[in-house]
Amino acid sequence: MSKAFLTKPKGFRVAAVKAGIKASGKLDLGLIVADQPCTAAATFSKNKIVGPAVVIDREKIQSGRAQAVFVNAGISNTCTGNRGERDVHTICREVGKCLDIDSDDILVCSTGIIGEFLPMGKVCKGIKKAADSLSRTALADRNLAQAILTTDLCIKSSLQKISLGGKTACIAGIAKGSGMIAPNMATMLAFLTTDVNISATLVRRALKHQVKLSFNKVNVDNHMSTSDTVIILASGQAQNKRITKADAKYKKFEKALGLVCDDLARQIAADGEGATCMVTVRVRGAASSSDAYAAVRKIVESPLVRCAFNGADPNWGRIVSAVGYSGAKFDPRKLTCSIAGVPVFRAGTPCRFNAAALSRKMKNKQWDVLVDLGAGRYQDFCYTCDLSRGYVRINADYHT
Amino acid sequence: MSKAFLTKPKGFRVAAVKAGIKASGKLDLGLIVADQPCTAAATFSKNKIVGPAVVIDREKIQSGRAQAVFVNAGISNTCTGNRGERDVHTICREVGKCLDIDSDDILVCSTGIIGEFLPMGKVCKGIKKAADSLSRTALADRNLAQAILTTDLCIKSSLQKISLGGKTACIAGIAKGSGMIAPNMATMLAFLTTDVNISATLVRRALKHQVKLSFNKVNVDNHMSTSDTVIILASGQAQNKRITKADAKYKKFEKALGLVCDDLARQIAADGEGATCMVTVRVRGAASSSDAYAAVRKIVESPLVRCAFNGADPNWGRIVSAVGYSGAKFDPRKLTCSIAGVPVFRAGTPCRFNAAALSRKMKNKQWDVLVDLGAGRYQDFCYTCDLSRGYVRINADYHT
Repeated sequence: MSKAFLTKPKGFRVAAVKAGIKASGKLDLGLIVADQPCTAAATFSKNKIVGPAVVIDREKIQSGRAQAVFVNAGISNTCTGNRGERDVHTICREVGKCLDIDSDDILVCSTGIIGEFLPMGKVCKGIKKAADSLSRTALADRNLAQAILTTDLCIKSSLQKISLGGKTACIAGIAKGSGMIAPNMATMLAFLTTDVNISATLVRRALKHQVKLSFNKVNVDNHMSTSDTVIILASGQAQNKRITKADAKYKKFEKALGLVCDDLARQIAADGEGATCMVTVRVRGAASSSDAYAAVRKIVESPLVRCAFNGADPNWGRIVSAVGYSGAKFDPRKLTCSIAGVPVFRAGTPCRFNAAALSRKMKNKQWDVLVDLGAGRYQDFCYTCDLSRGYVRINADYHT
Repeated sequence: MSKAFLTKPKGFRVAAVKAGIKASGKLDLGLIVADQPCTAAATFSKNKIVGPAVVIDREKIQSGRAQAVFVNAGISNTCTGNRGERDVHTICREVGKCLDIDSDDILVCSTGIIGEFLPMGKVCKGIKKAADSLSRTALADRNLAQAILTTDLCIKSSLQKISLGGKTACIAGIAKGSGMIAPNMATMLAFLTTDVNISATLVRRALKHQVKLSFNKVNVDNHMSTSDTVIILASGQAQNKRITKADAKYKKFEKALGLVCDDLARQIAADGEGATCMVTVRVRGAASSSDAYAAVRKIVESPLVRCAFNGADPNWGRIVSAVGYSGAKFDPRKLTCSIAGVPVFRAGTPCRFNAAALSRKMKNKQWDVLVDLGAGRYQDFCYTCDLSRGYVRINADYHT
């Protein structure tokens, strides 16, 4: 059974309870609580339609400080007008009262169905129950990672250890995300804890940079969600000398944070709704970074391409033609494409390859598509998954 | 049984044969031949990766003149390098020889699998057979409409009659297109014939304008094809006084042409791969035409939205959140959305509606989604269809 590690960094307790928000009756409400106010940073959905929690969190995180995170799954409390906004304030008040924490230091995340109100009676009871059961146990860690899931099949967690001036520090993360996943923001919920002692400016800088290279590189269905939030809390309890400059120690921290974020991002793509395989699509040789980005996006946004992934069909024509309408500059005679390491298209003409053998490779859990535009030195990538009957089943049959 | 009408306008003969290009052995090669050189215009895919036929046709149509169109389905002859280009020239030579027509007046269209070479022996035999069987019969018309199909389930055809200065004229069209359908070009093959006497400049202008409002408004799977072509041939045999100015008669012609194009475009959306319903998505109240376009595109490009269509699920949250990341300017508190005529979201909050009754309406063959951004006076629309297990089956299971 997979493990979650949010309390591995020193200074954190977590809890998860069944509050009755999810119709399934599963774990659906959690708390992440630091012993002391933490240095904190966050990134949010760039959707114009966002839940009130995102609006309020965005304001609060300006302080670079937070002590607790409330999270619920099942209902996203988005498109719920003034009542939705009041409910977020009520949650902060309740959490603050139970834990004796300033309401300004409490962040709220809700994920799930759009347009429904939170059952506030159940939520308030859930908060009390969760506050009473905060702990640093592996079970609590695991339960929390479970509680934040919606259509996800498995929990997503990651852990890195680093040594900073003789002190050992940890960076841990959990995430959820399966549908409504497209980049250009933090594309899901992810919570990161660390005991590294670091300034608010630098933790924000590291998070922003690493989210761009990880969570924002995941695309399941082109659909940008309304609740996406990534939060990091840094307790400082590793007792390293505070990192206040972008020096070698900062770089070490940022690199480790990047590994955690990348690991979680891959787990999200692999658990995309209905996914049977996780595919990394890389474009290199682009004339500009925007060209590389555009070509990657058009490939992963094509349902035709992603159906071919599902069928383990080395249909390079779909990939190459998607690049063709991406707007990226290239000479078709210099374009090359390989699938799972096998060259399939080169210099404007098809390569000879063993289609049956390649199809078998595409039945593996993870493989790559590589396109070289032959037009420059820029590159980009995206994590995606196949488009299956399972995706349609999940999103057509289960009614709002 | 549906009828096709390409020979209703005076001055055209057509033929279709089984040349053995489609593995299924179905009709796969056709000719459209005018008695005399016609005034002609065409629009093509804007994909950077296009078949050699598109490149060559684009050049030829500059003359504003054409007399014959060769078309085959099964193999698109795209990404086939120099050999593919030579094959197009061979086709023109063969058609020219059989029909005694100048090679410059012959256009070529190929649709089907990317990256395979045309079986030129079979193609040349097919051309001879087709040239020998040209006729003005309803059966030939129907066979041709059938021959150009790939994954389409049904033929697509349309006819309009107009009176011009006492003369009756016709505009007829057939089309194919089912997958790899996204706007921003002529998104499929469509062939239009008319006996209207009109200048090349004006027929080009009318076609360009009407394609934008019809074929370019269809989106099945965001994937722009490599072979898309719309061609119109005007024989002039209705014997109306030649239309050379953008006057009332020109407007009458353009309007009728628009009706034919719109009718064909709707038929393409309704026959999208795996489609069970055809949905017109309209956005109005936009601050600019590009905002209206962006909002429409993001709605129809979301597989989440189109799965909800498939499930007859009035999931307005997916529609509204897609508008939210479209980049269009709007105030969420002024946004309204209705599905199949039923208001579901207004002024930033959900409307009360009978979900079961609305779901029943969504099980109809055709219905609308209407979003009002409340930000201006611009509007746009798109024809799309639902995303079903059938789409995945078609595009995952049938290997290249």
